[in-house]
Amino acid sequence: MSRIVNVAAAQLGPIHRTDSRRAVVARLLEHLRNAHAMGCQLVVFPELALTTFFPRWYVEDQAEMDAYYEAEMPGPETRILFETAAQLRIGFYIGYAELAVENGVKRRYNTSILVDQSGKIIGKYRKVHLPGHAQNEPWRAFQHLEKYYFEPGSSFDVWRGFDGIMGMALCNDRRWSETYRVMGLQGVEMIMMGYNTPVHNPPAPEHDDLSMFHNQLVMQAGAYQNGTWVVGVAKAGNEEGCEMIGGSCIIAPSGEIVAACSTKGDELAIARCDLDLCRSYKTTTFNFERHRRPEAYSLITERRGAIEPEALPA
Amino acid sequence: MSRIVNVAAAQLGPIHRTDSRRAVVARLLEHLRNAHAMGCQLVVFPELALTTFFPRWYVEDQAEMDAYYEAEMPGPETRILFETAAQLRIGFYIGYAELAVENGVKRRYNTSILVDQSGKIIGKYRKVHLPGHAQNEPWRAFQHLEKYYFEPGSSFDVWRGFDGIMGMALCNDRRWSETYRVMGLQGVEMIMMGYNTPVHNPPAPEHDDLSMFHNQLVMQAGAYQNGTWVVGVAKAGNEEGCEMIGGSCIIAPSGEIVAACSTKGDELAIARCDLDLCRSYKTTTFNFERHRRPEAYSLITERRGAIEPEALPA
Repeated sequence: MSRIVNVAAAQLGPIHRTDSRRAVVARLLEHLRNAHAMGCQLVVFPELALTTFFPRWYVEDQAEMDAYYEAEMPGPETRILFETAAQLRIGFYIGYAELAVENGVKRRYNTSILVDQSGKIIGKYRKVHLPGHAQNEPWRAFQHLEKYYFEPGSSFDVWRGFDGIMGMALCNDRRWSETYRVMGLQGVEMIMMGYNTPVHNPPAPEHDDLSMFHNQLVMQAGAYQNGTWVVGVAKAGNEEGCEMIGGSCIIAPSGEIVAACSTKGDELAIARCDLDLCRSYKTTTFNFERHRRPEAYSLITERRGAIEPEALPA
Repeated sequence: MSRIVNVAAAQLGPIHRTDSRRAVVARLLEHLRNAHAMGCQLVVFPELALTTFFPRWYVEDQAEMDAYYEAEMPGPETRILFETAAQLRIGFYIGYAELAVENGVKRRYNTSILVDQSGKIIGKYRKVHLPGHAQNEPWRAFQHLEKYYFEPGSSFDVWRGFDGIMGMALCNDRRWSETYRVMGLQGVEMIMMGYNTPVHNPPAPEHDDLSMFHNQLVMQAGAYQNGTWVVGVAKAGNEEGCEMIGGSCIIAPSGEIVAACSTKGDELAIARCDLDLCRSYKTTTFNFERHRRPEAYSLITERRGAIEPEALPA
């Protein structure tokens, strides 16, 4: 048996602060058309794929801030993406900054959506693991103010689509094993994951040379340990003076990288993904029902931070 | 600041069914002495390090079965290990089959202990994730009857020792992200992990060529994602006709392998492990208190097996 979905990891090079939505959308459309020409049914774009990675600056002015967010999806500048998707019969995942109004209150999320081959939104995800900090910290070479610009989402869901069970996450989510496991417990077969990852991490520059290694390690482990495809897609390159890692790739349920980008610009990596390859992991080594032991896992949900054991009495 | 513990991953080649405890213990003593000569304070031995990996056979006779288990630790044949450890001021971790009597009932566990530099047992762990099966399955080239020979343990604990916070796990535990996280949430700085892993997995032979890749992947990810050292130690080589992977290694909190064995026999891999290297992970990217979101993790403890979402109505 096989259930093939042809997937494109649609990496983007930098998006500059002054780039218009129209210019960015033109690049996304180019990716859609090229992926369609290669026989793809699904294109995965990065996190915050419509703008520069604005959490690197501290902005207080509301109007200036709002310009980075989408108040509707599709909106006037993004509708063409959905129309083109429907025409080409190609679905997509895309990340963007979402401005929602809930019970009369403005709310801001780091969001992704999954659009099917008819151009219809079939799933929305709001980023759970917001990295960085909530206050301006001028000592940093650049800010990482996701905890200032966004509220966290509260769940990892999956959706039926593309003949399988699809999941979404964003950037820092990929470093947390819980992200994959919560979706694995819902039978996920492909996790799409856009990211913006600076090479330099101001609080821990001693890890900078390992940023690509860590990027691959966490996604490969998440794929293998849950028997799922993982599609990780970067916004890469030098964006407004900040170097971002590339390394977009498609990872099989074996944990093996089967397609990868090698530039820091707009680039497609393509794989013919058989969702039925998940089965040989999900039914053997990672047959959760047979082998998991939730009774030993209670700290994972009882405790947020680490608590060290008491020191032994002297 | 630095807190150095010099650690030896003490890989063992095969132990045959007819090898006496005395012969095996002589090999362990040789490892202790060589590690001591290299300045080590801690030696990590494999899982079931006193016997052949007997779950590969189905045995019904109780007396024959009991011969593989230790009814006391130290016992007459193992006491010399503890005495030598105390003389050399070198601690050790070792895995063995434990026969316990609890409330008058015989109980069997796949167990490891941690022994300090005075030869005293400071921690005991009973394997939580028992792999394999509970009934004899003659179609297999060999059995993997851990669910027949052992009851599962119920918790992942940590212990103060060796100037740090030490954790233990065994073999299949290393494939489960929950293993590392539960100890990570207790501040673990070094996880010791003995294993016996056949190259061939009868239910999924299509993964056999990836056995070493998977071995490294899960331990490297567990180390990085929790900012902890991981010491993985194999019983390796052709044991009673069954090929076992080697790949014993010491992994830094960065996820990098810093020492490794390259044979399938008795071999030491040694590293100078600074427990303070954990700090730069535990206080930045993996500052659990700042970044974890347990409210999104409830399925991890609520659900054992995977449950797929309802198919969409047509």
